[in-house]
Amino acid sequence: MAQINPTVGDIARNTGLIKSNIHQAGESGAQLVVFGELALVGYPPKDLLLKKQFIKDNLIALQDIAGVCTDCAALVGFVARHQGDTGKALYNAAALLIDGQVKSVYYKQLLPTYDVFDESRYFHREISQQVFEFQDTRIGLTICEDIWQATELTSRPLYDIKPLALLSRAGVDMVINMSASPFVMGKHEFRRELFGGLCRNYQLPLIYVNQVGGNDDLIFDGCSCAFNRQGELIAQARDFTEDLLIIDTDSRESNRCEVLKTGIASIHAGLVLGLRDYATKCGFKTVTLGLSGGIDSAVTAALAVEALGADKVVGVSMPSRYSSDHSKTDAQQLARNLGMQYLTIPIEKAHRAMEEMLSEQFKDRTPDVTEENIQARVRGNILMALSNKFGHLVLTTGNKSELSVGYCTMYGDMAGGLAVISDVPKMMVYELAEYINREKEIIPSSIIHKPPSAELKPDQKDEDSLPPYAQLDEILKRYVEQEQSTADIIAAGFDEKTVRRIIQLVDRNEYKRKQAPPGLKVTSRAFGSGRRMPIAQNYQPRKS
Amino acid sequence: MAQINPTVGDIARNTGLIKSNIHQAGESGAQLVVFGELALVGYPPKDLLLKKQFIKDNLIALQDIAGVCTDCAALVGFVARHQGDTGKALYNAAALLIDGQVKSVYYKQLLPTYDVFDESRYFHREISQQVFEFQDTRIGLTICEDIWQATELTSRPLYDIKPLALLSRAGVDMVINMSASPFVMGKHEFRRELFGGLCRNYQLPLIYVNQVGGNDDLIFDGCSCAFNRQGELIAQARDFTEDLLIIDTDSRESNRCEVLKTGIASIHAGLVLGLRDYATKCGFKTVTLGLSGGIDSAVTAALAVEALGADKVVGVSMPSRYSSDHSKTDAQQLARNLGMQYLTIPIEKAHRAMEEMLSEQFKDRTPDVTEENIQARVRGNILMALSNKFGHLVLTTGNKSELSVGYCTMYGDMAGGLAVISDVPKMMVYELAEYINREKEIIPSSIIHKPPSAELKPDQKDEDSLPPYAQLDEILKRYVEQEQSTADIIAAGFDEKTVRRIIQLVDRNEYKRKQAPPGLKVTSRAFGSGRRMPIAQNYQPRKS
Repeated sequence: MAQINPTVGDIARNTGLIKSNIHQAGESGAQLVVFGELALVGYPPKDLLLKKQFIKDNLIALQDIAGVCTDCAALVGFVARHQGDTGKALYNAAALLIDGQVKSVYYKQLLPTYDVFDESRYFHREISQQVFEFQDTRIGLTICEDIWQATELTSRPLYDIKPLALLSRAGVDMVINMSASPFVMGKHEFRRELFGGLCRNYQLPLIYVNQVGGNDDLIFDGCSCAFNRQGELIAQARDFTEDLLIIDTDSRESNRCEVLKTGIASIHAGLVLGLRDYATKCGFKTVTLGLSGGIDSAVTAALAVEALGADKVVGVSMPSRYSSDHSKTDAQQLARNLGMQYLTIPIEKAHRAMEEMLSEQFKDRTPDVTEENIQARVRGNILMALSNKFGHLVLTTGNKSELSVGYCTMYGDMAGGLAVISDVPKMMVYELAEYINREKEIIPSSIIHKPPSAELKPDQKDEDSLPPYAQLDEILKRYVEQEQSTADIIAAGFDEKTVRRIIQLVDRNEYKRKQAPPGLKVTSRAFGSGRRMPIAQNYQPRKS
Repeated sequence: MAQINPTVGDIARNTGLIKSNIHQAGESGAQLVVFGELALVGYPPKDLLLKKQFIKDNLIALQDIAGVCTDCAALVGFVARHQGDTGKALYNAAALLIDGQVKSVYYKQLLPTYDVFDESRYFHREISQQVFEFQDTRIGLTICEDIWQATELTSRPLYDIKPLALLSRAGVDMVINMSASPFVMGKHEFRRELFGGLCRNYQLPLIYVNQVGGNDDLIFDGCSCAFNRQGELIAQARDFTEDLLIIDTDSRESNRCEVLKTGIASIHAGLVLGLRDYATKCGFKTVTLGLSGGIDSAVTAALAVEALGADKVVGVSMPSRYSSDHSKTDAQQLARNLGMQYLTIPIEKAHRAMEEMLSEQFKDRTPDVTEENIQARVRGNILMALSNKFGHLVLTTGNKSELSVGYCTMYGDMAGGLAVISDVPKMMVYELAEYINREKEIIPSSIIHKPPSAELKPDQKDEDSLPPYAQLDEILKRYVEQEQSTADIIAAGFDEKTVRRIIQLVDRNEYKRKQAPPGLKVTSRAFGSGRRMPIAQNYQPRKS
């Protein structure tokens, strides 16, 4: 079970990785090595798939890999051409490589088109015989979505066939699933329950190999695993890191079974991996971020240090006339605890210059959010200048609660290349802080315990503008993740005025999220490619 | 033929619009009034479709509309529920409303999943009988994509059925197509050729009703039309505006046939419509933009004045120490010609403040693009402050050539709510300027004839960094719109080094485009939802 971390589009590098895993597996006595979905091109390749040369390069690389499969066979995910006259020109496919050749090719049967998935944009779907004989074992092959069909766990079945039922009818001894299944909190527990149930139901053992690594907004957690026909776990690869797990399909005892992270520890590990991979796959060696003395930037800094090392992270304090003393000392203490580089660049000069430049235009107007945003945008300009000059990736530090209601400034605190915690609700940010401090105080407790504030005007507190975060997060979860209606949420016992106000804020701030940097997905529904809302729209639910 | 401009999601407003068109058509003696695809909810509704309440509201509204169909029948596009056990829960549907009731419902047969379309994300596809009898005429009903199947005009057929062939076999007297077909240059000419050929081929008359109006990045041009069975045009509605065209399906002579705009005039009309609708559907009354004295901002300003009126457009000159005198006078002259409001806010104070604030960090470094971006971001901050204070929509002025190669500054000149000409290549910007000046000089000729410059450092010219635009645009068209490979483009006779450099720039600047505001689509492939590239990727075509 070769759980590798491919780079999207980097066929040369992925080929090398696949070959070295085949070599290593063969050396360890493996007879068949299984890779994840589209391992050769990395998942998701998106519109790179529309380049003919890209498809050709991937086919040449597949032949190249076949050449090393002399002692050990391999199942490799790749993009096949669909030769038929009608339909999409490609298949999401897997090749069985034996004796130096591509022996046979199998196709994904179910193409997901929901959340972040757009597979029918690229791939043709063809119901085909997905069985091959290997060393006297009849193996049924499936790719990712093909086995996500259990009506008891998911909602309405989306497809008209059940590949596992077909394989069961065809009489196979074992099922293999090659996946690129993105992480969300609780996903591996969910998979275990789902897969265990499927194995029991069909009385078939299952080998599940998943991709690992971060690709843009998606984090793949790995967690490849195997089950016997009783649905018992018989092997478990690592989470959030590459792994090559050699298993004996006959003997449960001899296999390695890693213990996996759960809950907030898994979120932490996922974010660290997503951040590290985004930076390195984009070619950045260092990152920078603003340190406000608040909890969001503290958690983001700690994640960055964990991902890249303290010497690769530059924290920048950018105090204004409204910054409290504790903000500055807290930020400095945090940087010291993390051992990261720390700069202070006060924004007063540019802040005052902007006020003077706009004074004539604004002379008859009372201060409002405009003056707050100006400060945030001066800070954005500073961080981007440091990025341009020194080649740092700028990390933004906004959480999901703020981004949901638009409590953030475009081109200000939203300026940067990666939104590390933009899918982490505020209450979960606190959990992350506690987790980061599990062994010793890294994030100063004063940062954790002070009331959140943007410090963009005197004595400002988040809760002057927003309901308490515990309440806000619960409403947002229902509205954004669960698609509950206003009426549903009010019926669940939340204050009507608050619910209506929050929902209006979420709807009205779509334009801000349109321009947000990619954010690492950790919940079942993140902003970004998994939530595609029109901006110029005006849906007002009918009053019943 | 009711060519209406619905607002996405605004079921109440769209219902009113549909009812008033039915009323007016009935008054004019029409027996059947046909609306566009999903007219009731506006196209594309995107993830609003995932809200159960939204679907329910749309069904209630459909009943409401049926109630007014007493004298005149109507075909209305709406979202139907799919009652089956498996598959997506919705249909892209059309209802035949007669005698105050929903008499029958028809479904879209072919669901596009390419370019900007994601219909299999939402809709179930079901092959069904799409024929109804109306006043002794057997009518075959199709929805948009259902008739886009001509193998002679498009590439590889994407679908396994041809709805027109099925209808022809079922023996219909006429075909109706209800559409929401986005504008790109040359689209209506293409449609006429395609539809005329289909009518001749199947010996069937066709009535085609399209949506009109701008919805986010998409512009719908209307251009509804009708053909007889010889493929001759027998009626033509207006382009880029609402229209209610009453036609006699038996008599070619008595029908209205509008002359449509072509070429650059159609681009101009499309951009004006897209800009006006984005602003008004988002609730903005006024817009602002930076006037640099260059051609991009001049064309954008002229489009804005055309769309909203001169009193609704605020041009802002933000000269720096590098701005030439002619830039300032040209910008002022442009504003005077257009009759728009004109402000001057020099950026020197904030520019100098930023330099001072960063001087310690930058002290051992030579100036580079960093210093240029700082100025652009000060300007972005000014425009956004004016937007925040006065409620203007900020228009960005970058063209497609710049956006392609990243010759633009995030949070600087890319800051704003709508990118008006971001799908217009630079050479086409010149054509637009000539078109705008077709009757009198609105854009000063000095703006048109000076060499393009960002004026972010002394004596800067675009062509110091980029190849001549005529050449750049041709390479970009091949790479971005036509998906040609590096090798293809070089083989077509372009300089290898230039081609490789341009393609590398396009690929490397995906992160900038990720954060760009929505841009109005006018070419066959725009950046945005029609081009979905991964950011953290590293595809390098194999050297053959």
